[in-house]
Amino acid sequence: MREVKVNAENGSYSILIGENLLKDVGLYARHMGYGKAAVITDDAVAELYLDLVKTSLEAEGVETCSVILPAGEESKCHECLLQIYEGLIDGGIGRDGLLVALGGGVIGDIAGFAAATYMRGVDFIQVPTTLLAQVDSSVGGKVAVNMPQAKNIIGAFYQPKLVLADTATLKTLPQRQVSAGMAEVIKYAGIADAAMEEKIYAGDFSELVCRSCEIKAEYVHDDPYDKGRRMELNFGHTIGHGIETETHYSLLHGEGVAIGMAAVAKIGEAMGVTQPGTYETIARMLDRWKLPRDYETHRSQAVLQAMKKDKKSAGGEINVILLEKLGKARPVKMTAQELYNRLLQI
Amino acid sequence: MREVKVNAENGSYSILIGENLLKDVGLYARHMGYGKAAVITDDAVAELYLDLVKTSLEAEGVETCSVILPAGEESKCHECLLQIYEGLIDGGIGRDGLLVALGGGVIGDIAGFAAATYMRGVDFIQVPTTLLAQVDSSVGGKVAVNMPQAKNIIGAFYQPKLVLADTATLKTLPQRQVSAGMAEVIKYAGIADAAMEEKIYAGDFSELVCRSCEIKAEYVHDDPYDKGRRMELNFGHTIGHGIETETHYSLLHGEGVAIGMAAVAKIGEAMGVTQPGTYETIARMLDRWKLPRDYETHRSQAVLQAMKKDKKSAGGEINVILLEKLGKARPVKMTAQELYNRLLQI
Repeated sequence: MREVKVNAENGSYSILIGENLLKDVGLYARHMGYGKAAVITDDAVAELYLDLVKTSLEAEGVETCSVILPAGEESKCHECLLQIYEGLIDGGIGRDGLLVALGGGVIGDIAGFAAATYMRGVDFIQVPTTLLAQVDSSVGGKVAVNMPQAKNIIGAFYQPKLVLADTATLKTLPQRQVSAGMAEVIKYAGIADAAMEEKIYAGDFSELVCRSCEIKAEYVHDDPYDKGRRMELNFGHTIGHGIETETHYSLLHGEGVAIGMAAVAKIGEAMGVTQPGTYETIARMLDRWKLPRDYETHRSQAVLQAMKKDKKSAGGEINVILLEKLGKARPVKMTAQELYNRLLQI
Repeated sequence: MREVKVNAENGSYSILIGENLLKDVGLYARHMGYGKAAVITDDAVAELYLDLVKTSLEAEGVETCSVILPAGEESKCHECLLQIYEGLIDGGIGRDGLLVALGGGVIGDIAGFAAATYMRGVDFIQVPTTLLAQVDSSVGGKVAVNMPQAKNIIGAFYQPKLVLADTATLKTLPQRQVSAGMAEVIKYAGIADAAMEEKIYAGDFSELVCRSCEIKAEYVHDDPYDKGRRMELNFGHTIGHGIETETHYSLLHGEGVAIGMAAVAKIGEAMGVTQPGTYETIARMLDRWKLPRDYETHRSQAVLQAMKKDKKSAGGEINVILLEKLGKARPVKMTAQELYNRLLQI
């Protein structure tokens, strides 16, 4: 088992990474002093792991209830949020109760937001079961739900008390989901660590999850409220979010980001900001994991409109994260319209 | 104009108290650097003051939009919250935008919660137009919405950047609303300052608002996250909330609290905790403002059930705030059932 520590002014906690950690959820919960826990999950994950986690909790004397949402991004909505709140009330979860977010990024985000707002905040543990969630969304305390108009536009900064990343769960993950997670791993290579390139071709998950969490933990430490340096984590995300909205979330988040990274690498080279050849390297890593990079088919007005509504467009300008070269990010301010114009030109 | 400063670890700000402050909302907003503001209000307040506030903002070059909810506690719900979010998105409010909560406690609570969660938090100013909101809900950073099952069960700790309490607005307030606000003023006399009794009979609003805010500011400074001493502010509230739920919010919050204060004063005397005669003094202040104190008619199973679901019932026990004497609170732990049994016996 490996441990990565996150130290931020709004909360410090450990990320534990290893095989077969799910069966120890109860042990950790009891040691942390919780008497009651609500497990929030989706129907796909519930079938595989809910009994294991509930049994683990109950074996340690932690009373449990659970809320099972339909799998998929559509569940990151207010209807499902209300379903969680109702489950917490019915389950008798009090201020000293615990929420366990068991699943991918959608579950982590919505359960985390429920934890941040139920009774003005109760504790929660992230138990990410997808690669994407293990390397990105379960770490850092950004929790959110979507509105039909925009992704993640409602949310909070709220750190978990613990993250348990069980890499054995990746074995049951569909290949498409694994690839989508690799998109975020490729992001870390792009903005912070060129040495990850070889590891990405090799595909050692335990190593990649650990290194990704280390990089993310540094950003979270420096910038817990996402007011500065942490913006670099948005490499590929502005265009990616626009494409996700345009396609009504039929693309996975990581797939949108993959296309977005390819596009901005190309844009950066065209602008003379990015070292020539960087796009080729990014493309090679994306291809290794069969990720899409066909930005040509996503140059629609819908993408432009979605980017204009991006919550990061403070004062009309977006910090677009370009690369200087592999392993080094370079934020550049431009409007959504300028970014879109550059997307049309590559 | 008087000023009370609130200094809490999660935010420091001023409460300005005086006549005709509404016309200066724009001035403050511009000085604080905002370019866009969304005014959240209800239809009753909108008719009286929305134009004044919007004109004030626009005269200072602050672009505005507004969201108008139906007046009443029923608006503190998720449907109305979504209406606010949609208004913010449509109005193009970004992370650097401002929310102005113009109205009573319902508007302050729901607009504050919207501010806490929109884009993971945007700034907001409280402009309370009821006595209740001026002396209580607009100060202290507790924001919330209701669920059908329980009041305030979804919320956050999120401090405003400024509170503007315009005492001229109290002149347009129905007498029943003024009285409901006085219930919270009587609460401060009960838990913290016996010298307020004479001022409560006299009814000098400016003085009473200022003294109430000073007392609340001390509690908020000591206990911003409501984990200790601040519980004393719940004098009368456990039974009060139970009665509000039982009557489906047909009673005003202050009216529920008034009945609750009368009941616990009587319970405290019966327990030998409260100095004899305290109930009579509380009753005299309530009568001066024509507030209800007929706890006999609210000893139903519905009140018990509502108290059992109270979000403060950590581990099954509630900190019931009794008085030692007028001006001094004394928290006593008991279960909802015990409190209810005592309510049956007085």
